[in-house]
Amino acid sequence: MSAATGEKLWIIPDGYIPEFSSGSLTSHESICVLNTSSEDASLSITIFFEDRDPLEDITEVVQGRRTKHIRTALLDKEGASIPVGVPYAIQVKSNIPIIVQYSRLDATQAENALMSIMAYPIK
Amino acid sequence: MSAATGEKLWIIPDGYIPEFSSGSLTSHESICVLNTSSEDASLSITIFFEDRDPLEDITEVVQGRRTKHIRTALLDKEGASIPVGVPYAIQVKSNIPIIVQYSRLDATQAENALMSIMAYPIK
Amino acid sequence: MSAATGEKLWIIPDGYIPEFSSGSLTSHESICVLNTSSEDASLSITIFFEDRDPLEDITEVVQGRRTKHIRTALLDKEGASIPVGVPYAIQVKSNIPIIVQYSRLDATQAENALMSIMAYPIK
Amino acid sequence: MSAATGEKLWIIPDGYIPEFSSGSLTSHESICVLNTSSEDASLSITIFFEDRDPLEDITEVVQGRRTKHIRTALLDKEGASIPVGVPYAIQVKSNIPIIVQYSRLDATQAENALMSIMAYPIK
Repeated sequence: MSAATGEKLWIIPDGYIPEFSSGSLTSHESICVLNTSSEDASLSITIFFEDRDPLEDITEVVQGRRTKHIRTALLDKEGASIPVGVPYAIQVKSNIPIIVQYSRLDATQAENALMSIMAYPIK
Repeated sequence: MSAATGEKLWIIPDGYIPEFSSGSLTSHESICVLNTSSEDASLSITIFFEDRDPLEDITEVVQGRRTKHIRTALLDKEGASIPVGVPYAIQVKSNIPIIVQYSRLDATQAENALMSIMAYPIK
Repeated sequence: MSAATGEKLWIIPDGYIPEFSSGSLTSHESICVLNTSSEDASLSITIFFEDRDPLEDITEVVQGRRTKHIRTALLDKEGASIPVGVPYAIQVKSNIPIIVQYSRLDATQAENALMSIMAYPIK
Repeated sequence: MSAATGEKLWIIPDGYIPEFSSGSLTSHESICVLNTSSEDASLSITIFFEDRDPLEDITEVVQGRRTKHIRTALLDKEGASIPVGVPYAIQVKSNIPIIVQYSRLDATQAENALMSIMAYPIK
């Protein structure tokens, strides 16, 4: 059995799905999760906006001893998803400790821009 | 009622508003705040410079259960704002716990560059 | 004698070796380690994937009072290495405290994109 | 009197001064320091290499209630400075608490790449 490491609650204040892509790659964001435990991790993701109520409890599973790089554009809650071109923020809650990083590839221009942060752990 | 998470004091040492833009996007920086509480958060922002006294107590409000991505170029204190092309630093103080991230898009060249950090929390 | 600083266990959830390079630089990732101690640090690196078992216990040594910027593409465990174009995650374990940063240069396009994070320390 | 905030010891494992520049900007790195105290901060910077002894005790001063964005290429210790195109690591020690961020602009290609991290605080 392998132990879980990290925290159960992580915050990413700067979410944004670029509207356009050009060149050979597509603009996208990923929530990158590592689950070092032998057990599966059950995630509940909440999306906060600037001008409307949050989209709550989008669920994901990260298998034991696996990583999962989750595309934010594919997150879906009963048909509702994150609109492109809109500032938002992300909260990731897990039933067991995990580690969360966030990365964005902006391919608005043919040449790409990359950014990445470790999400902020709430202890 | 939802609980506040994070910290009340955050620091960003590397602030810089690029002087020029080219291509389809405009150079800009954002202070990205998440307020997970049901209550509004009242922010007091201080700007530190290399060669002059700080610009103190610029106020902003982030509503409850909302995110706000604040453009630094729009910060205003009785007509005084942050000059472009000058190195500076940012302190964000809040009356309740929040989470703060800082991102910069540099579009000096037609193809863009991106950087982002989680601000440093003072506990 | 100089003291060791940092932590013994570090996590990087978003690993990815770009498939292509163009222009004058080559796409690559580095695990950047600082060992402030006079003693050598013995590292054991584990690579986690999305759909298969981890590649465990790849060993590296960082000499005392030295930094080492380790290219992930050169990590090797009895002939097995990290495939390109596949999402993965990294765990770095050390026998003494060290500090770990992760950086990626993506030269898929002729103009480059850079990202960097401090790895997440497990205390 | 304003209080000092942050920590007295900060680490940046991934230092690198790009060898080349093209386009309208010059490749460079900055160690960005904020001193929130009314008192001046005296810094002692150590540079660690992969294959030789560290360059120790390069001194800098950051005035009270000021930020300073220090170009690494200008650091100088009795005529010795950091060579370009060589991986290195940075330790920043201060006599009072400060906050340290590190940013790199890579203008090897005409279009720029940016990366930034909060340095790792040793408590």
